[in-house]
Amino acid sequence: MTQNSPKPISRFPVPKLEELPEDVRARILAVQEKAGFVPNVFAVLARRPDEFRAFFAYHDALMVKEGGGLSKGEREMIVVATSAANDCHYCVIAHGALVRVYEKQPLLADQLATNYRKADITPRQRAMLDFAMKVALRSGEIDETDYARLREHGFSDEDGWDIASIAAFFGMSNRIANAVGMRPNDEFYLMGRVPRERR
Amino acid sequence: MTQNSPKPISRFPVPKLEELPEDVRARILAVQEKAGFVPNVFAVLARRPDEFRAFFAYHDALMVKEGGGLSKGEREMIVVATSAANDCHYCVIAHGALVRVYEKQPLLADQLATNYRKADITPRQRAMLDFAMKVALRSGEIDETDYARLREHGFSDEDGWDIASIAAFFGMSNRIANAVGMRPNDEFYLMGRVPRERR
Amino acid sequence: MTQNSPKPISRFPVPKLEELPEDVRARILAVQEKAGFVPNVFAVLARRPDEFRAFFAYHDALMVKEGGGLSKGEREMIVVATSAANDCHYCVIAHGALVRVYEKQPLLADQLATNYRKADITPRQRAMLDFAMKVALRSGEIDETDYARLREHGFSDEDGWDIASIAAFFGMSNRIANAVGMRPNDEFYLMGRVPRERR
Amino acid sequence: MTQNSPKPISRFPVPKLEELPEDVRARILAVQEKAGFVPNVFAVLARRPDEFRAFFAYHDALMVKEGGGLSKGEREMIVVATSAANDCHYCVIAHGALVRVYEKQPLLADQLATNYRKADITPRQRAMLDFAMKVALRSGEIDETDYARLREHGFSDEDGWDIASIAAFFGMSNRIANAVGMRPNDEFYLMGRVPRERR
Amino acid sequence: MTQNSPKPISRFPVPKLEELPEDVRARILAVQEKAGFVPNVFAVLARRPDEFRAFFAYHDALMVKEGGGLSKGEREMIVVATSAANDCHYCVIAHGALVRVYEKQPLLADQLATNYRKADITPRQRAMLDFAMKVALRSGEIDETDYARLREHGFSDEDGWDIASIAAFFGMSNRIANAVGMRPNDEFYLMGRVPRERR
Amino acid sequence: MTQNSPKPISRFPVPKLEELPEDVRARILAVQEKAGFVPNVFAVLARRPDEFRAFFAYHDALMVKEGGGLSKGEREMIVVATSAANDCHYCVIAHGALVRVYEKQPLLADQLATNYRKADITPRQRAMLDFAMKVALRSGEIDETDYARLREHGFSDEDGWDIASIAAFFGMSNRIANAVGMRPNDEFYLMGRVPRERR
Repeated sequence: MTQNSPKPISRFPVPKLEELPEDVRARILAVQEKAGFVPNVFAVLARRPDEFRAFFAYHDALMVKEGGGLSKGEREMIVVATSAANDCHYCVIAHGALVRVYEKQPLLADQLATNYRKADITPRQRAMLDFAMKVALRSGEIDETDYARLREHGFSDEDGWDIASIAAFFGMSNRIANAVGMRPNDEFYLMGRVPRERR
Repeated sequence: MTQNSPKPISRFPVPKLEELPEDVRARILAVQEKAGFVPNVFAVLARRPDEFRAFFAYHDALMVKEGGGLSKGEREMIVVATSAANDCHYCVIAHGALVRVYEKQPLLADQLATNYRKADITPRQRAMLDFAMKVALRSGEIDETDYARLREHGFSDEDGWDIASIAAFFGMSNRIANAVGMRPNDEFYLMGRVPRERR
Repeated sequence: MTQNSPKPISRFPVPKLEELPEDVRARILAVQEKAGFVPNVFAVLARRPDEFRAFFAYHDALMVKEGGGLSKGEREMIVVATSAANDCHYCVIAHGALVRVYEKQPLLADQLATNYRKADITPRQRAMLDFAMKVALRSGEIDETDYARLREHGFSDEDGWDIASIAAFFGMSNRIANAVGMRPNDEFYLMGRVPRERR
Repeated sequence: MTQNSPKPISRFPVPKLEELPEDVRARILAVQEKAGFVPNVFAVLARRPDEFRAFFAYHDALMVKEGGGLSKGEREMIVVATSAANDCHYCVIAHGALVRVYEKQPLLADQLATNYRKADITPRQRAMLDFAMKVALRSGEIDETDYARLREHGFSDEDGWDIASIAAFFGMSNRIANAVGMRPNDEFYLMGRVPRERR
Repeated sequence: MTQNSPKPISRFPVPKLEELPEDVRARILAVQEKAGFVPNVFAVLARRPDEFRAFFAYHDALMVKEGGGLSKGEREMIVVATSAANDCHYCVIAHGALVRVYEKQPLLADQLATNYRKADITPRQRAMLDFAMKVALRSGEIDETDYARLREHGFSDEDGWDIASIAAFFGMSNRIANAVGMRPNDEFYLMGRVPRERR
Repeated sequence: MTQNSPKPISRFPVPKLEELPEDVRARILAVQEKAGFVPNVFAVLARRPDEFRAFFAYHDALMVKEGGGLSKGEREMIVVATSAANDCHYCVIAHGALVRVYEKQPLLADQLATNYRKADITPRQRAMLDFAMKVALRSGEIDETDYARLREHGFSDEDGWDIASIAAFFGMSNRIANAVGMRPNDEFYLMGRVPRERR
């Protein structure tokens, strides 16, 4: 794999694509095909194939699945807001790009990353993020009143599980990214900011 | 699955064993065979088979793998200390049992859960836990000096990855357990406290 | 006094029983008679007889007195929950034993030490512990609404004084124990966990 | 006892002097004789004679005793700095008066109450207060290095015990005063600010 | 300018009065005329005339202006409470003097500096200070409910702007004073404590 | 003034340009001429002309002045890092644009806003930001060692004054912007991200 920046993308060595197990390589080639580049999280985690497989299986179960009360953009909004609370470069910048792309809203990610309470979101999304932030920062205090507030905004308890699991999964991802020094690809910074035809 | 306590083990419904996909059921039967009971985390997560599979695949990649500079008991020590910082009943009590069993040290888990700085551990284990707690609580501040301190105590950088990933994975587990109201099995509380022949 | 562990029970020297003033020695012999061992707090504080006397006089005024709306077990519950918030080995482990013994509830102490909000307690006990934790952690914010909430759960204002004083007294005890490196006796860890007839 | 202010000095009833046990009344009359008024802590705690006796016995053992490396003024400095951290009106204002009187330094108490790091104190006193503040705020982190730093400044380990016990005792006192709404006497505010001959 | 204390009033050099630009010198002479001494903030900031001018222009716009729902004493109460939260010697002590002078209440400043929740203030002033403290400590959480609470106590939204701006301006002042080591004049400590005729 | 967004730019009314005092209007027209739009901070503060004048006079004294050891881009880096710590939309987004423009570095502002410790900056800039963040978050702990560390990186004490004053001034600005609900102009989000010729 060629690093797309002269700066190291991790404090750990990054494996060559041809050295990887077939399934890991296939997953990386597929994402490269779709995105036009390899997001660094794939390159950095690939050195531990079992962890790579479990990480992306969990990711897909939460973020890619169809159905449920959360749009793909809303799931990414959870990621951006909680990752900012966890001081994680990689997730704020990479998933900020996804918020812009899915929501077709070029300003939203930067708002969420700074202060989700002042972002251009609906009251329902505010309730979703309040719950997610409580999971991220004070999960030991969650109780029935938190689920009740979600229900007032039309979320089912299954949605509550989804919100909590996304906040928890990216809480893990943030800590790993911070500990191994994972750098976001330069491509993410501009993605979704400029209308397609202008690029 | 029969709940081993009259108290609910989660605020979400727990599926019947016979309703589960074959691989999930097989995993549960295997752990029941080995432990003598089904730890509630298996019963609670089974309702979401994809998440169940990813969760335990990640768990096994970090906690069960052979090799590396961390003993199984030391990995469980990381879980107990960080889970206490995250106020998680399930993980402190269930993994406290594993610390007692693996380390054959009946006092250690309670010490780690209250204040790991005063526990009966080696300076090397103290360095391991300092690193793990920084991942759990202030991962955005981790830098090269943290890895240097690990190396002074004989840990490789791969061990650093392991410590960080265990702290991060259980940071996720703690948040999910807190959010879904996961209750530890009564069996865990006494496990490893009394010599086998006395029971 | 013979230390009941090869580990030092304090960073300060522990006096010999025969060197102690008569009243201090008598108190220690009495507790040894009753408990079967000398809890280390007696051994550690005995080197300062005046402080020893005042400490245990205050302790007895709050914890041993008859009457009032708090059972002995509830008073110990306050000690465990607040001592966990103060990271104190000695008090969590020694008074956790007393919670188990008084309440005849082998699981409760570990629950309270990790997250009292999720423990198997009544709403009234939850209100009692919320008040105690506010005294322990944010006493400057206590106002009339806190007493009103106690009254809703049937506590008198005198009970409020008791709860506050217990939280405050053990806040002192926690800080002294932490500062002098007081180690809990090994005996406490198992006490109250196993039914008498099985031992 | 006549309250020296139209504002209540506690949310609890204050007993009449003639209703008190002989020893409690004698103690109160003695302090009134010496100070010219009854500090409210005596009036407020008197309703619980056993607690009153233990409280003042402990107080005297730490604050009045002769010998040791801490002057009376330095002991009061510990009280003011830690009580400010605990947001306690009574102790900051009453013991601030004692700092001014013992140290014959009219500015020091207000400095300590706001930010002890910038107060007009010696490096040795700064080390004393750093230790006391760690006892007050993060006692679970105290270790051998804290005692070593005290020794660098000429404090013995016995002095360390004294500093820790004073910070811990007033940590209790602060919490009780905050919980029962104890009001400092108006007399304390001006005490020690104006040279005697000018009054 | 002669420093009115043998202790340095700043870690930066203090300019001579005769070296200052005419307008800066005139302002300093005017305050000296009125107060009887030069408050150190004038002496310390004078070395940067442009910053001096902007600082006092802002100060005057907020603190000296006529009209609005806040008395001069109430504005100073905001300064004392928020400056205490910011650990600033200069502002707590200098503006504490102004609270005493404007409010003719010798006890109030010390109460506000320790714990404004327990101070002798009206419910309306309590609401004012709650708003100011939220601006000082958690401004990102301010929303419409905070203004609604002000209105319940008779404050207009313009008063809200005033309260917020005073808390924000002195938040700046506190940080500058702390960073440059600004020392309050000795004169402030006693000001307003003793009735005029007694001095 | 026409608002450049359908969303309100403040919870307070925004004055019409023609209603403003001549000097305020002139300043606004000048910035509009230069930037191509009126940054909302000008529009929002204009309703209080005296505060407007003082605010921008202070701003210019710190941010526009020539000389000193800080480049214009470095001053804006301080604003972005500290404003992120204060959860301020307006300042992170508006001054993030200026960091990109002055530093000709399209990635830097987003990095600083998330976690300045991991940003692409020099060790000297890291020391500058460590000092600025201490001013923003714990100014009461600043002492001589902080200035010594600045000097190790080639900063003069005058530079220290500049860094502290910028962090303090924008600490004020952040709190005002948060309290009055100031919204950043949409134009800022994209500024400096795309090379000029591509737009």
